[in-house]
Amino acid sequence: MPLLTRITGPRDLDRLSLEELTQLAEEIRTFLVDAVSKTGGHLGPNLGVVELTLALHRVFESPKDKVLWDTGHQSYVHKLLTGRQDFSKLKMKGGLSGYPSQGESEHDVIENSHASTVLGWADGIAKANQVMERDDHVVAVIGDGALTGGMAWEALNNIAAAKDRPLVIVVNDNERSYAPTIGGLANHLATLRTTDGYERFLARTKEVLERTPVVGRPLYDTLHGAKKGLKDFIAPQGMFEDLGLKYVGPIDGHDLEALESALTRAKRFGGPVIVHCLTEKGRGYQPALQDEADRFHAVGKIHPDTGLPISTSGADWTSVFGDEMLKLGKEREDVVAITAAMLQPVGLDKFAKAFPDRVYDVGIAEQHGAVSAAGLAHGGVHPVFAVYATFLNRAFDQVLMDVALHKCGVTFVLDRAGVTGTDGASHNGMWDMSILQVVPGLRLAAPRDADQVRAQLREAVVVDDAPTVVRFSKGAVGPAVPAVGRVGGMDVLRAPGTGTPDVLLVSVGALAPMCLEVADLLNKQGISTTVVDPRWVKPVDEAMAPLAERHRVVVTVEDNSRVGGVGSAVAQALRDAGVDVPLRDFGIPPRFLDHASRAEVLAEIGLTAPDIARQVTGLVARLDGRYDRAGAEVDQVEAARD
Amino acid sequence: MPLLTRITGPRDLDRLSLEELTQLAEEIRTFLVDAVSKTGGHLGPNLGVVELTLALHRVFESPKDKVLWDTGHQSYVHKLLTGRQDFSKLKMKGGLSGYPSQGESEHDVIENSHASTVLGWADGIAKANQVMERDDHVVAVIGDGALTGGMAWEALNNIAAAKDRPLVIVVNDNERSYAPTIGGLANHLATLRTTDGYERFLARTKEVLERTPVVGRPLYDTLHGAKKGLKDFIAPQGMFEDLGLKYVGPIDGHDLEALESALTRAKRFGGPVIVHCLTEKGRGYQPALQDEADRFHAVGKIHPDTGLPISTSGADWTSVFGDEMLKLGKEREDVVAITAAMLQPVGLDKFAKAFPDRVYDVGIAEQHGAVSAAGLAHGGVHPVFAVYATFLNRAFDQVLMDVALHKCGVTFVLDRAGVTGTDGASHNGMWDMSILQVVPGLRLAAPRDADQVRAQLREAVVVDDAPTVVRFSKGAVGPAVPAVGRVGGMDVLRAPGTGTPDVLLVSVGALAPMCLEVADLLNKQGISTTVVDPRWVKPVDEAMAPLAERHRVVVTVEDNSRVGGVGSAVAQALRDAGVDVPLRDFGIPPRFLDHASRAEVLAEIGLTAPDIARQVTGLVARLDGRYDRAGAEVDQVEAARD
Repeated sequence: MPLLTRITGPRDLDRLSLEELTQLAEEIRTFLVDAVSKTGGHLGPNLGVVELTLALHRVFESPKDKVLWDTGHQSYVHKLLTGRQDFSKLKMKGGLSGYPSQGESEHDVIENSHASTVLGWADGIAKANQVMERDDHVVAVIGDGALTGGMAWEALNNIAAAKDRPLVIVVNDNERSYAPTIGGLANHLATLRTTDGYERFLARTKEVLERTPVVGRPLYDTLHGAKKGLKDFIAPQGMFEDLGLKYVGPIDGHDLEALESALTRAKRFGGPVIVHCLTEKGRGYQPALQDEADRFHAVGKIHPDTGLPISTSGADWTSVFGDEMLKLGKEREDVVAITAAMLQPVGLDKFAKAFPDRVYDVGIAEQHGAVSAAGLAHGGVHPVFAVYATFLNRAFDQVLMDVALHKCGVTFVLDRAGVTGTDGASHNGMWDMSILQVVPGLRLAAPRDADQVRAQLREAVVVDDAPTVVRFSKGAVGPAVPAVGRVGGMDVLRAPGTGTPDVLLVSVGALAPMCLEVADLLNKQGISTTVVDPRWVKPVDEAMAPLAERHRVVVTVEDNSRVGGVGSAVAQALRDAGVDVPLRDFGIPPRFLDHASRAEVLAEIGLTAPDIARQVTGLVARLDGRYDRAGAEVDQVEAARD
Repeated sequence: MPLLTRITGPRDLDRLSLEELTQLAEEIRTFLVDAVSKTGGHLGPNLGVVELTLALHRVFESPKDKVLWDTGHQSYVHKLLTGRQDFSKLKMKGGLSGYPSQGESEHDVIENSHASTVLGWADGIAKANQVMERDDHVVAVIGDGALTGGMAWEALNNIAAAKDRPLVIVVNDNERSYAPTIGGLANHLATLRTTDGYERFLARTKEVLERTPVVGRPLYDTLHGAKKGLKDFIAPQGMFEDLGLKYVGPIDGHDLEALESALTRAKRFGGPVIVHCLTEKGRGYQPALQDEADRFHAVGKIHPDTGLPISTSGADWTSVFGDEMLKLGKEREDVVAITAAMLQPVGLDKFAKAFPDRVYDVGIAEQHGAVSAAGLAHGGVHPVFAVYATFLNRAFDQVLMDVALHKCGVTFVLDRAGVTGTDGASHNGMWDMSILQVVPGLRLAAPRDADQVRAQLREAVVVDDAPTVVRFSKGAVGPAVPAVGRVGGMDVLRAPGTGTPDVLLVSVGALAPMCLEVADLLNKQGISTTVVDPRWVKPVDEAMAPLAERHRVVVTVEDNSRVGGVGSAVAQALRDAGVDVPLRDFGIPPRFLDHASRAEVLAEIGLTAPDIARQVTGLVARLDGRYDRAGAEVDQVEAARD
């Protein structure tokens, strides 16, 4: 990598010739395939933006100018050009984040991996530049898929209205979000893609006219002056210009000269402008280009030559759900499925293949997923909206005000719930069990194993007068955790020994094996423990308070924010029942989590069996009077939890 | 009202002549001005849709066909035509809702008063019709203002893609949401409004050609066949057709014949179609038409002839905030303001007048309000986003992932927090103190009186590394509630008498006077009570646990959902500190609240001083051993809370 290794910052690109830049692009692609094969990561999107990123950093002066990336998983090239070339620990603890990170570089701004935010950020920064009287430039890179999100529209509407506020929007159009982009917008972009006649016509005309020295300039100028009219005649510029945004394009997103020329024009324009770039996801890497489903959007560790995965894990939560949905679809014609541009990642591909007329990909549009689900339910069918837990936050108001208020039977299946780890702060699904607690009538299931996913999905889809939620973790599903008894609607996973039990351990979802381990550790300390899995964590089972009352301490363990989660709900249910048994709630502390493996994150936040057992032991000891409230052991316990 | 009183359902309209319909429209306007003057309500929007509603109900067959209203405050005419003509208790307990209500009529669907939802509902119902093989029609009425919301865009993108799924979108274009509509879309609609040449041209041509009997038909057919090309030439149809939506319009929204003709064409089209109707907010009522600010969008009780308010209340929370913002704006050039299409209702009009370059109306676009605020803060200014508490739900993900994750100093001012009452379930601001609890780093203030609004706003805007929230109630602000002491950062509002105090009463925001009344009642029972106002309810003050420990019972009172609110946060803080003093949390029960006055709602949910005092007395008695846990008094208490 003779050229790449010499790039320490964007300004190093200035002195490179076109030939060298082309070579650099090749080096970067080789680097990406090699590096990401070893660690896993977002390969396809980054292979598609190599030339675009080079051109952006040659035309704009980061960090004075702000180069903003939507969703952020396509920022690997940007990292390579801004002093970050050690990809050996990509997405791992202590290594580079898979997204931009202000902590890593002054060239990074948006860390958030939720799509469609960049235009709003750009609008805000451009407004701040105006207030602070700075003439810095702002350029926002957004995929065609992300344009289907409502936030993008809200931002475009605002950006277009401020004619005097410079802002460059680069539409990175690869015809896909995760999968091919859907909707009216995608069709419109396709039209724009095929009407590139005008720019080429103009270029050719200019060339011809400029070769005619005497009459050349005036003739060209005349043509240029009539540009708007001519342009409309040859190739209507469509909705962006209708909104009032200057449109430049389409540009070949792998042609460095064309990119630099277009971006330079856009930079000088003095108002809001859209540069429409056509790129190819997975560019230059055959295994990606041959993968019709998602062009290697995000991969695990792979063989770099073949693109084949190095290891395949066993059954995962997603496929357990996907297989059961397929069965449900066969049994009930009124069950339909919704995805927000992630058909395959949420496990709906089999259902979609079997029932193409009963699956709706709404684009990157969680709000629409939820509100159209309300409409579907009102119309008498039962929609199952499968979505990553962290992305449901986008539809909170719709879950509350459209689905719940109208008593619609909609099932939300939340994949990647809890700590997901390597994708960093914004990908952890650690909020759902808190914010959904406030939704009246909503019922929430946290299945602990594959059998429970199947069973609880079936329990959910028969509820036709309220929203239901089934949330489960990321990755491989563990072995079955059998119930040894039942109290109310709750499964008893471990009955205490003889005598008065000390601890009631309330286990939520996939943490059941960990809770059984905690019980083992407590039993070794002579602390008798009941482990119960409520299965449906909202509402709190009516049997909970009477059961709690027969114990000395209640402990809740959940893979969700400690704040307002299942622990808080159980505590409130006990208070309401007048049961004042001490309760301790274990979960994720109220802060954003750095990227690391799930196990590393859980260890760091003290959500491990030994940590929990140690703290519960301390609490029981305190109740026994072995230590007073200010005792050293208790202090240690509190410190460990922070 | 000879005609109106004879209308018992939409089909009664079928037999009316154009002349009679015109008279009916006049009767309806007279009825609306008369009725709404007496009760208050949304006057301007309903005066604007009289003819449109008549035409809709003549062309479509509700309830078989679904006539859907966005935001719903313009459904009064619809109510009058569907058997609801008793407006005497509009928005009052037991009277008609100010929005559609499924409980009132089979003709109603969407009850939600949050804007921009109707297209998603319509898309869902149309999909359900397809799945269930029904050929019913779906028509959605949306204002031009609501089109600025991201949900509308997400829906349009989906609707446009399904060419074979019939759906009629009526754009009720009055150039305003609450206030004049902003943004690129508004400019585009303005263009469409002025390019009505084509339809008229076609109509004239048709007329001329049809008068020529022999060559007429073929010539007209030729023209008609070339419609698309001709249309584009004469009047480009703009972004809706770019998206793939058939566009019909613009139509004079007060011309009954034109409306029926356009709607009939749209109904027969067989795919998604937009009918662009131009209406006048406040039509036919001079006082409304002369009100440039909002055309009598929503009024209190008024004199019907003059439109002047019958009574003016004293200072309200909104104006206290607005006045202080104006002062802040003068003191700090880096303070900017954001509103989502509600400049005046949130009290930013004075600030806007003084600093027009530092106020941003983003449209009905709370997501963009929040994310652009993050960008503004990143750019070094301090944005204050003033928004109704209930509408902040729309921006939850942006508060969390854009503002908080990036440690942006953005202040959210939540107006109409808590029980607002007459606007019904979706207008109560009862969720914010729960869902915001999970947001790391966020600080939340609940000022109890005007002085505290001013003080806490100032404390908020100096925080530059985290989101801050200041939330207050609707309506008149009460008298000052002085502090008699300070513990940590908390104001003591009432110190207990001598001896060990029994109850620590934690008062949140505007409920301070009620809490002092509770203390009086308790003291009369010999129960010594400390009343403390934390001022900043998130994070829980470090002095809370030590203070709680010096009491026998902790009681929290908040104007927010009981679930996950301040009570839960205090309870968790006490648990974490190892303070196991019994706690009871009073707030709004986890259900949707029917419309009624604020006082009526509070009484119904038991959030009154006598109710709280009675329950706390019962609890203290139980602790004293006067009643056992299963005792009658306690049971009564629990029943009262549900």
